[in-house]
Amino acid sequence: MQNQAMVMTDVRKFELCNVSMPEVGTDELGIAVKSVGICGSDMHFYEGKAFSIFPNSLPFVLGHEAAGVVYQVGENVKDFQVGDRVAIEPGVPCGKCAFCESGRYNLCPDVVFLATPPVEGALKRYIKYPAFKTYRLPDNLSMTEGALLEPLSVGIHAAQRSGVTIGKTVAILGGGCIGLCTLLAAKAWGASRIIVCDLFDSHLNKALALGATDTVNSGTQNTVEQIMKLTGGAGVDIVFETAGSPVTAAQTSHIVGRGGTIVMVGNIMPDVPFSFRNLYKKEAEVRAVFRYCNTYPIALQAVASGRIDVKRIVSASYPFEQAQQAFDHAVDDKVNCVKAVITME
Amino acid sequence: MQNQAMVMTDVRKFELCNVSMPEVGTDELGIAVKSVGICGSDMHFYEGKAFSIFPNSLPFVLGHEAAGVVYQVGENVKDFQVGDRVAIEPGVPCGKCAFCESGRYNLCPDVVFLATPPVEGALKRYIKYPAFKTYRLPDNLSMTEGALLEPLSVGIHAAQRSGVTIGKTVAILGGGCIGLCTLLAAKAWGASRIIVCDLFDSHLNKALALGATDTVNSGTQNTVEQIMKLTGGAGVDIVFETAGSPVTAAQTSHIVGRGGTIVMVGNIMPDVPFSFRNLYKKEAEVRAVFRYCNTYPIALQAVASGRIDVKRIVSASYPFEQAQQAFDHAVDDKVNCVKAVITME
Amino acid sequence: MQNQAMVMTDVRKFELCNVSMPEVGTDELGIAVKSVGICGSDMHFYEGKAFSIFPNSLPFVLGHEAAGVVYQVGENVKDFQVGDRVAIEPGVPCGKCAFCESGRYNLCPDVVFLATPPVEGALKRYIKYPAFKTYRLPDNLSMTEGALLEPLSVGIHAAQRSGVTIGKTVAILGGGCIGLCTLLAAKAWGASRIIVCDLFDSHLNKALALGATDTVNSGTQNTVEQIMKLTGGAGVDIVFETAGSPVTAAQTSHIVGRGGTIVMVGNIMPDVPFSFRNLYKKEAEVRAVFRYCNTYPIALQAVASGRIDVKRIVSASYPFEQAQQAFDHAVDDKVNCVKAVITME
Amino acid sequence: MQNQAMVMTDVRKFELCNVSMPEVGTDELGIAVKSVGICGSDMHFYEGKAFSIFPNSLPFVLGHEAAGVVYQVGENVKDFQVGDRVAIEPGVPCGKCAFCESGRYNLCPDVVFLATPPVEGALKRYIKYPAFKTYRLPDNLSMTEGALLEPLSVGIHAAQRSGVTIGKTVAILGGGCIGLCTLLAAKAWGASRIIVCDLFDSHLNKALALGATDTVNSGTQNTVEQIMKLTGGAGVDIVFETAGSPVTAAQTSHIVGRGGTIVMVGNIMPDVPFSFRNLYKKEAEVRAVFRYCNTYPIALQAVASGRIDVKRIVSASYPFEQAQQAFDHAVDDKVNCVKAVITME
Repeated sequence: MQNQAMVMTDVRKFELCNVSMPEVGTDELGIAVKSVGICGSDMHFYEGKAFSIFPNSLPFVLGHEAAGVVYQVGENVKDFQVGDRVAIEPGVPCGKCAFCESGRYNLCPDVVFLATPPVEGALKRYIKYPAFKTYRLPDNLSMTEGALLEPLSVGIHAAQRSGVTIGKTVAILGGGCIGLCTLLAAKAWGASRIIVCDLFDSHLNKALALGATDTVNSGTQNTVEQIMKLTGGAGVDIVFETAGSPVTAAQTSHIVGRGGTIVMVGNIMPDVPFSFRNLYKKEAEVRAVFRYCNTYPIALQAVASGRIDVKRIVSASYPFEQAQQAFDHAVDDKVNCVKAVITME
Repeated sequence: MQNQAMVMTDVRKFELCNVSMPEVGTDELGIAVKSVGICGSDMHFYEGKAFSIFPNSLPFVLGHEAAGVVYQVGENVKDFQVGDRVAIEPGVPCGKCAFCESGRYNLCPDVVFLATPPVEGALKRYIKYPAFKTYRLPDNLSMTEGALLEPLSVGIHAAQRSGVTIGKTVAILGGGCIGLCTLLAAKAWGASRIIVCDLFDSHLNKALALGATDTVNSGTQNTVEQIMKLTGGAGVDIVFETAGSPVTAAQTSHIVGRGGTIVMVGNIMPDVPFSFRNLYKKEAEVRAVFRYCNTYPIALQAVASGRIDVKRIVSASYPFEQAQQAFDHAVDDKVNCVKAVITME
Repeated sequence: MQNQAMVMTDVRKFELCNVSMPEVGTDELGIAVKSVGICGSDMHFYEGKAFSIFPNSLPFVLGHEAAGVVYQVGENVKDFQVGDRVAIEPGVPCGKCAFCESGRYNLCPDVVFLATPPVEGALKRYIKYPAFKTYRLPDNLSMTEGALLEPLSVGIHAAQRSGVTIGKTVAILGGGCIGLCTLLAAKAWGASRIIVCDLFDSHLNKALALGATDTVNSGTQNTVEQIMKLTGGAGVDIVFETAGSPVTAAQTSHIVGRGGTIVMVGNIMPDVPFSFRNLYKKEAEVRAVFRYCNTYPIALQAVASGRIDVKRIVSASYPFEQAQQAFDHAVDDKVNCVKAVITME
Repeated sequence: MQNQAMVMTDVRKFELCNVSMPEVGTDELGIAVKSVGICGSDMHFYEGKAFSIFPNSLPFVLGHEAAGVVYQVGENVKDFQVGDRVAIEPGVPCGKCAFCESGRYNLCPDVVFLATPPVEGALKRYIKYPAFKTYRLPDNLSMTEGALLEPLSVGIHAAQRSGVTIGKTVAILGGGCIGLCTLLAAKAWGASRIIVCDLFDSHLNKALALGATDTVNSGTQNTVEQIMKLTGGAGVDIVFETAGSPVTAAQTSHIVGRGGTIVMVGNIMPDVPFSFRNLYKKEAEVRAVFRYCNTYPIALQAVASGRIDVKRIVSASYPFEQAQQAFDHAVDDKVNCVKAVITME
């Protein structure tokens, strides 16, 4: 078996390189990668926008949303066998710090996370991975659905932290991949009304197709006014900010209802002029979301049972050899390409 | 019995006026007021700063932190008798809306709150009050301690919403009356380390006397740097913003630790340039506090059992007739006067 | 308008009597009753089994699951008008005690509950009812669906107290009306696997039709063994006891999984020989359910949105005049009659 | 350095044996044991009562409440150095299963627990231990206080699971070591009233000395009647069963108040005739406690800060060589010996 990696050698430049096969440890699995989703952070890196945080990181291998087939099983590993179809959770926490021990392992300061320099990503033919962070897929899940458990996990973690349940009214600011994954989760968790706001009608139409009950085009409509109108002046029980923009972040305090919750899913870089007075008057709260924890079994179950049809967020699929085209498409046509996926074989 | 009210007739101007005795309803108590605390919102009103929100509200009666002695018992009221020493909870919610029914009655849109126009306050000789919002004081509580259950309730509500418990590290931004009440509550709830930050050494010394473990003078020290230094770079588990200032509000995201909680106790009027990126990286959360709910029995118990010595926040006491001097003192010497109280008889 | 009540005058004996029209208070609605569900407690009373608890209670009017049409609006009532189709929540709590104020109004010791002597029930042409416990039905809900919000509320309260969510495995012991309502709620709240156990295949088939994934006939199979087999020895995350039997109650500790939760929905009269050692080894917990609180808006939303199809639990429907036949049927054929409903007009 | 172990060779028979020094792994510490508490489970084993569960387990080494001094540091270990005074948490979970990952590592099925066959205990001169389960003691904690963090952890876990806080009323059934640790924790967590029930006045007097507000001698008084009398018929908010007896377990449902919580701390072997009807009427709940998780840092902080004075539970102290006398004393005089401790050097 000859391993190959899709190596990023320069801004917007990939090279397919022969690399050595991974040495599978005693608690690890050898996995033939079959599907890798392209995430916003991958695109950020591909465009050269992450070099300030990760200088001198090239050459590098991207990809952290991955699924594949087990080709080798470490000697201590039970419960897996060659041929198992699996998804991998891309972060491996230490398991020993106070955050890991108390159930919030996404806050582990020593987490090893795929495609975060210097840890290489999954855009390879073969990788090794710790078995305890690998999940066997039932037959009715495709490889791509396995890879998409990763962005779906973000949506599920956001839904869980929000307290959304049957009867709640929700607004989602931003209709990109994470916005749609949050929509899928909020709907599965029971949200009665889901208002999605975005600048692009293509995103809004996708949101409607996936279960949004209302949409607001924030380019042509006043988002705050429109949401207050749709809710009879009450605001929504839960706001999910997924656009990562200071503009949408500032809107959240205006549209959240009395006693409501704002969930900040996006990574909002600049400071936001925020009205804590709005928060005060409504005794509302803001909860940040950083990746996810304990979501993979739930995501897997939600997709396997048909409650969530995550594959519908996929806009385009490319073979491994055309990874560069896939990335170019994803980067250049954000309006239409919500999610691109790379598949092997 | 001749009733009297201390009526605010102009900015910083009180007149003692004869008024009629209250007509005590079937579910109400007649109460001879004995102690009234002066709150920041009273001072705000006294200085004429609330007229934009409450225009044409003069003449008006202030005071919502009150305790007294029962002189009349409505016919449907059980469990109280003439002579009972009582504290009153100044907000009477509707008991029927979704917020009341789900236990967050402080969010009731129809709450009737003392000293909030057009509802007059408690700076009178005699008032009537619903029995179900009146709490009998044990013998070892003074009238003033009864009145102070109100600001203490804010501190307790903040402590409860924060999740503070034994082992947690806390920072309190602002060492005024609410900051000190929050300190008392955080300490009673178990906080292991309590860092209080304020501009005035008088406030910081008071905080140390009441149980702070560390103080930062934010006028002469860099608050964020100092707190990070004191916590070995980890930040604190819980931040309470009680100063109501955009400057301190913005500091909160920098000093909260990973997985931590920021509690906004102060009412911060202007927008705050806030780093949600800090929140994101640490998956922290922000919880606003609006008044309190279900705290009076707890506050009463905490003071009666000696866990909280709330009377130590009192800086000055004035007789009813000198209410104007009391307010002038409170307004003009905020550096030294953390809490002024007015007493009858 | 001539009011009529279906009066229980003796064991298993109803008489249709002319009674006076209700005097609708200022905060009340006058409601023309259109649908009343027959509950297990109604049947218990009808069979004369409740006289030990409620001696000398005849003549009496039963019925507490009710919906109707507003024919009169009290002068203080906003938000309702004549002709509104409404469901009523049958318990009216005091709104002032510690239980009411903290959001658990179902524990209010002064609750006024329909069809609980001396408070008459809803088997009448016209009743009056407090507006704040009356819920307007959207057009797509039938009168009977409105009445069924009551038993569904029990199932929803049980689901909420259980913590059931997507990915959880559930066992429901008992497939009668409350068992099925719990099944509907557990499914809507996301339970992945729902094992229903009952003595009668008719109940189990109904459960399968409503969404159970597995069934156990407890008459012919060993319930504990079968559930452990179905779960690969792990037990279930959540057990709902709805049969009200000491036998099923004792089974719960054996089938709950590690860290799991047992919800006691049924009212189990005799002492149960219970293995707390099982609870200890698995650090499991037991939560009782007493009626419900804050569920009506959620139940209404769940049915209106199509997430829960509560009308499918109905086995038989009778006109008001044939209430006695309805009760006889419900009492005499528990195997086939899970839920009987009485309708007016 | 010559290692020695106190080896149990027969029922109530110890032999001091030379054993080899432990081989300290890369992530481990070598610890010179200085203090070991005798736990009820140790005594159970010593009396030969555990052989049905652990057959053929002799010779064996007991002891799982331990503290000592670091004499060797594994090469990967940071944050510890030779000479550090440390306490050890006796269970080492796998860190990878669903229970570990979600923060309830006490439920880990693969936990390695000291003094649980075949894992030997800490009654040795020298042991090795994983650094991540070792806690450095501040100077003001004695070695024995370090060892006692273990039983105190049980009390703290029980207090945390109970929701006890300021204002709550508590009953503790059983005043042995775990009862007293629960008392210490409940008091530190704020319980306003703590009623301790036991058969022995010696235990009750100890409880009073440690902060109980009331006691009931269950040998001479009717426990249920007495508690109902002390609480004016309301029952207590929280009941802790620590006696491990079916009699006390059955009492819990009678004395818990409306909406209250029963915490089963003891391991109650036989089935208990339990009234779930009581639970139902009060919508109460029962929570089992199995060991503890995430408590060591909190226990350490509580003792170091002076909030909990755990050393006062110690009844007797014996040198290592007299371990057999220590166990005999503990076993033969349970009335007076609540806690015996063995110390080295």
